[in-house]
Amino acid sequence: MATVALAVHGGAGTISKRRMTPALEAEYRGGLENALRAGWDVLHRNGSSMDAVEAAVSWLEDFPLFNAGRGSVFTHEGRVEMDAAIMDGRTREAGAVASVCNVQNPVQLARLVMERTKHVLLAGEGANQFAQQCGVKLQPDEYFFTEHRWRQLIDARNADRVQLDHSEGLEAPPAASLGTVGAVACDSYGYLAAATSTGGMTNKKFGRIGDTPLIGAGTYADGACAVSGTGHGEYFMRGVTAYDVAARMKHGGVSLADAAQASVDVLTELQGDGGLIAVDTHGNVALPFNSEGMYRGFVTGDGKMNVEIYGD
Amino acid sequence: MATVALAVHGGAGTISKRRMTPALEAEYRGGLENALRAGWDVLHRNGSSMDAVEAAVSWLEDFPLFNAGRGSVFTHEGRVEMDAAIMDGRTREAGAVASVCNVQNPVQLARLVMERTKHVLLAGEGANQFAQQCGVKLQPDEYFFTEHRWRQLIDARNADRVQLDHSEGLEAPPAASLGTVGAVACDSYGYLAAATSTGGMTNKKFGRIGDTPLIGAGTYADGACAVSGTGHGEYFMRGVTAYDVAARMKHGGVSLADAAQASVDVLTELQGDGGLIAVDTHGNVALPFNSEGMYRGFVTGDGKMNVEIYGD
Repeated sequence: MATVALAVHGGAGTISKRRMTPALEAEYRGGLENALRAGWDVLHRNGSSMDAVEAAVSWLEDFPLFNAGRGSVFTHEGRVEMDAAIMDGRTREAGAVASVCNVQNPVQLARLVMERTKHVLLAGEGANQFAQQCGVKLQPDEYFFTEHRWRQLIDARNADRVQLDHSEGLEAPPAASLGTVGAVACDSYGYLAAATSTGGMTNKKFGRIGDTPLIGAGTYADGACAVSGTGHGEYFMRGVTAYDVAARMKHGGVSLADAAQASVDVLTELQGDGGLIAVDTHGNVALPFNSEGMYRGFVTGDGKMNVEIYGD
Repeated sequence: MATVALAVHGGAGTISKRRMTPALEAEYRGGLENALRAGWDVLHRNGSSMDAVEAAVSWLEDFPLFNAGRGSVFTHEGRVEMDAAIMDGRTREAGAVASVCNVQNPVQLARLVMERTKHVLLAGEGANQFAQQCGVKLQPDEYFFTEHRWRQLIDARNADRVQLDHSEGLEAPPAASLGTVGAVACDSYGYLAAATSTGGMTNKKFGRIGDTPLIGAGTYADGACAVSGTGHGEYFMRGVTAYDVAARMKHGGVSLADAAQASVDVLTELQGDGGLIAVDTHGNVALPFNSEGMYRGFVTGDGKMNVEIYGD
């Protein structure tokens, strides 16, 4: 039996350390611990890494403090449009959705794309039609409305007025632009899986799609490692960051830790903020980031939960 | 000065050899030669690889026999929805559009996404709004209507009726499902660029997005190589094929030819059909494929044009 391992993240766009309160920090930590528990319950009874990452990410989507599912940010038009992806390292099959609305758990819809269609990525109206045909759980708009996300949109829209280009309201709190949730797992058979989900960027326009639903950019798994990224998505797309970790291991023969750190270093060179979580078939985990913090946690063989928010 | 080089493709979904006529073959060859000429004109006067691939792909988009721009296939709903991407190997900046309508040259819109927004990928309605704001050349629906594409849709729809899942009408001619156009170039400064454009799959549903507009899957360029893929897109997404070529060179230290062939071998393992064109900074080109044919051509330093359709 392989050493089971699980890691989760709640985004690299943490609240800055000086604005964090003990009560809020406890809430975030509790959210990460519950997500780890949801995934660990699956792994512990010899369930698959696919089921584990789906369970963990579904939990994070239901938790209103992270930017995915229920806690998603608003687009420029004041809507919630969500992206998600899942990949099975055993078969390299994958499913993803972009710009879906009213779906409670986009990660579950992504898995149905993998299992019930011959496609990998469905987007927009078509993806919503598919959701309805599948019968996944839908929620009314009110379910997704959270006061702090609405305020972020208003702030970003106001900032946007004085910007000449289509930048993303840089004055908005970083949590608005770098939020994502994700999970990676190695199950007792040594198979890997990765899943990522997000509400995207506050105030996003023009049907922007980020890295989360793109296999190789924000989400990737094969026989070498499973990776879920979080950060400024455009840089993960240009760096093909999630796959870059696997490619360094497979083609360069380096360890998970070295590969993960090197891929984040490339992000830094490109001047992109973010981080990633990764796991290999030996149950090693790596959680490098170049931002001030990254909501993150992991459990390995001994069952001990480790949860952190900022760097050392 | 670096050795300039340019390669183009018109898709891995060639008409089967037994159905090809000399007259039709001459038309296809003429299309590829004209696209090479358009890109070569740029490179020859020390223009940039970005301008060269944009010129070559624009030419292929305007040519009605290839599945991109004017010759695009129809979606299940009888519409033309196009995808395109472009990447600058010098800066690793990229732009892409998915599911755009009525845009004469999607590759030019992709470049505007790169140059005028902070995003990499815009999709659907939002991307169409962006096209209107940019003032790119739009064309009425009739411009995109070609008789043979319409027949392909009717055939695929008919085949679909007897299929239980969401497969893509496998009975349709292969040209319907594997069509794409692309170009890669190395300019006299040694900088690389790649661009790809497609009308997608005949009879596609649910807002399916393929590999073409996804950086790392169907299109990629950096300081090592530039790659444009063509084939069954879902396998290029799962294999992260375009970036895999670059990763093998950078992390594994292998040559362009070996890297390109190895990445196509992975496609074959995954049971995906297709091929790719690639160029490195020394002006080497590689054009491997595992399908019956691939419309393709290249020019290197000596200015001699090479155009092929089938394997040896």
